[in-house]
Amino acid sequence: MDLFPIFQELMQASESKILLVVLDGVGGLPLELGGPTELEAARTPNLDRLAEESALGLLTPVYPGLAPGSGPGHLALFGYDPFRFLVGRGALSALGLGADFREGDVALRGNFATLAPDGTVLDRRAGRPSTEENRRVVARLQEAIPRLEDVEVHFYTESEHRFLVVLRGEGLSDAVTDTDPQKAGLKPLPARALEAGAERTARLVGLLSERIREVLRDEPKLNGALFRGASKRPSFPSMGEVYGLRAAAIASYPMYKGLASLVGMEVLPVEGEGDAHEGKLRTLRENWDRYDFFYLHFKKTDAKGEDGDFWGKVGEIERFDALLPELLALGPTVLALTGDHSTPAALKAHSWHPVPLLLKAPYLRRDEARRFTEGEALKGSLGHLRGVELMPLLLAHAGRLAKYGA
Amino acid sequence: MDLFPIFQELMQASESKILLVVLDGVGGLPLELGGPTELEAARTPNLDRLAEESALGLLTPVYPGLAPGSGPGHLALFGYDPFRFLVGRGALSALGLGADFREGDVALRGNFATLAPDGTVLDRRAGRPSTEENRRVVARLQEAIPRLEDVEVHFYTESEHRFLVVLRGEGLSDAVTDTDPQKAGLKPLPARALEAGAERTARLVGLLSERIREVLRDEPKLNGALFRGASKRPSFPSMGEVYGLRAAAIASYPMYKGLASLVGMEVLPVEGEGDAHEGKLRTLRENWDRYDFFYLHFKKTDAKGEDGDFWGKVGEIERFDALLPELLALGPTVLALTGDHSTPAALKAHSWHPVPLLLKAPYLRRDEARRFTEGEALKGSLGHLRGVELMPLLLAHAGRLAKYGA
Repeated sequence: MDLFPIFQELMQASESKILLVVLDGVGGLPLELGGPTELEAARTPNLDRLAEESALGLLTPVYPGLAPGSGPGHLALFGYDPFRFLVGRGALSALGLGADFREGDVALRGNFATLAPDGTVLDRRAGRPSTEENRRVVARLQEAIPRLEDVEVHFYTESEHRFLVVLRGEGLSDAVTDTDPQKAGLKPLPARALEAGAERTARLVGLLSERIREVLRDEPKLNGALFRGASKRPSFPSMGEVYGLRAAAIASYPMYKGLASLVGMEVLPVEGEGDAHEGKLRTLRENWDRYDFFYLHFKKTDAKGEDGDFWGKVGEIERFDALLPELLALGPTVLALTGDHSTPAALKAHSWHPVPLLLKAPYLRRDEARRFTEGEALKGSLGHLRGVELMPLLLAHAGRLAKYGA
Repeated sequence: MDLFPIFQELMQASESKILLVVLDGVGGLPLELGGPTELEAARTPNLDRLAEESALGLLTPVYPGLAPGSGPGHLALFGYDPFRFLVGRGALSALGLGADFREGDVALRGNFATLAPDGTVLDRRAGRPSTEENRRVVARLQEAIPRLEDVEVHFYTESEHRFLVVLRGEGLSDAVTDTDPQKAGLKPLPARALEAGAERTARLVGLLSERIREVLRDEPKLNGALFRGASKRPSFPSMGEVYGLRAAAIASYPMYKGLASLVGMEVLPVEGEGDAHEGKLRTLRENWDRYDFFYLHFKKTDAKGEDGDFWGKVGEIERFDALLPELLALGPTVLALTGDHSTPAALKAHSWHPVPLLLKAPYLRRDEARRFTEGEALKGSLGHLRGVELMPLLLAHAGRLAKYGA
């Protein structure tokens, strides 16, 4: 159900400031049954003190059993129903790579493949080349195919056999089928138009595939390309339109900046490598007076979880804990701390498990949760929420939502 | 919202086995405020031990306040939204009776009624005859009316004044109105077609009502019939199509076999009377290697609740407890234990109260629930779920759902 018209109707002005901190993939699992999760194992004196004066709850990011990718997990936290606000595969790659990806462009996920002389696919992943090998071939293609007819063609290396193409020109459509036949022994499929007006884009994708084969005919392995997930940059209503918020994003990794920009946040520059704690803090301080809402993203908790590095993830949680006093010193009216999904080290992957939510704000009830952990969050006074339900709660505590109905 | 296309997209192969055990109507109420429920009163050493190493949660079968029938309660547990996947009244009776009810057939719920000579309904339930009386009259009707035109007519005794008719022939429709006027003093209503193509079926229902009056004109009480809930066998996507599961049902009562067959489960034969613990266990063992998912149903907890027999229901829970070690010995990857609704002996009826859910599976968080009871389930790490949310959770724990979105 679309609640945006309701939020729009109820929005009211306020001087309050909302700070939403996302520790990517922060939810975890014990290494063995009955043991602590990463959050439970971490020593977090500052978070513990904050939890005492906060309300906690447990957040199911998207749906029970669904392990969300970064896209759905974040859109839900921003209040955008991830079943309604879809980001195509090509578009998500473009956001993840920080590619120049504009309204009207069409992004396509490419696989380098090995094709037989008759065009049959021998290996859909071209023997899993190194990312450097990918870069070399992408550079050849970019030089040889800067455009097709009047359409610009931009190639980007993703990793191993994966690359991205962004087409830029007038009248392009993303309603074209994949050329990837999904298994070896078949020929690449022709790109077909899925609706009237898409015929030219389908023809261009076919032409692109042919040109790539010509340019790469001397390559032993990376001599063809298969395309999937043609998509335009989605056009979502902005957080300004929906919530009346001047919203800013502070993140280091392209994917999160890209997702924030999709919902109309201003993406602020951050100096420093990796999670750049100091750089993010500086950006936050310097821009504190200019926005109503800040989305502050930390990536390393997820990265360590993906690596299966339980204690590395614990260390990242503790690093964040050390930063916390400086965030609190800014005096946000509403501070929310949560994750976009769980990434238990035990699974080395995103999982479907709920994540803890901490809310420091006016108008809280007492609760019995004493730490920012999965187990304590269960006892919290916020109860059990879906990711998409977080934003209205933050707006309410920030005094930004009027009464619904008379 | 229809999530089936999402599950279909995300399904992935696995060697895992899921065992879903449904103790029908297992949720209860105390006999007096502050007392134990049936589950709390039962001595269940095996369940208690299992609960220690499981995660618990509380499941609202369909919606808060709604006391579900067997149909909606079970469909929800199978992941089929009971507000979207509707089973008509006639179809549900046919399933409950284990009637031969095929695609294209139309099932009608009948009431024997007492009609005045001018056709006015004197008693909508014909003085609540005994079920034996019903059988006698049904036999008369079956012999006298084996068909109408080229349509086969099959009569089944349900109980007391209730019976079932299954019509079998080409081009039948269930879009016909009820003939039951819903109160005495009125004449039976004509069956009307609700859409083009249903006219003939409406005429046949009218003809059937006339023929029944002719055949039963010498009966003092059961001399007419009123029809309701014309329905075809619903055509639902199968669990194989939706989840990629080879699914089997092990149940003794026709209703549950019928519901399982509606979602494409293979219904396995069970030897023995009543809940047939040994027979079910044997069927489960013998078929263990042939399926990915087993639905194992026990009925008596509900039956004792319906009878208002608190201690009888406690006894059925304890009987199940005794069987539990043999179920665990099979080594299911994911074991879920729950009910399709509550049937508190205190109410002698299905109720709307949530039911406990126990999940023994990989990737569990520690939780503080120590027994499979309503009160302990509240503290469980699974939180509070809807019935329809159970299946995706089971699939996730079984490693059968890929990440949603990149």
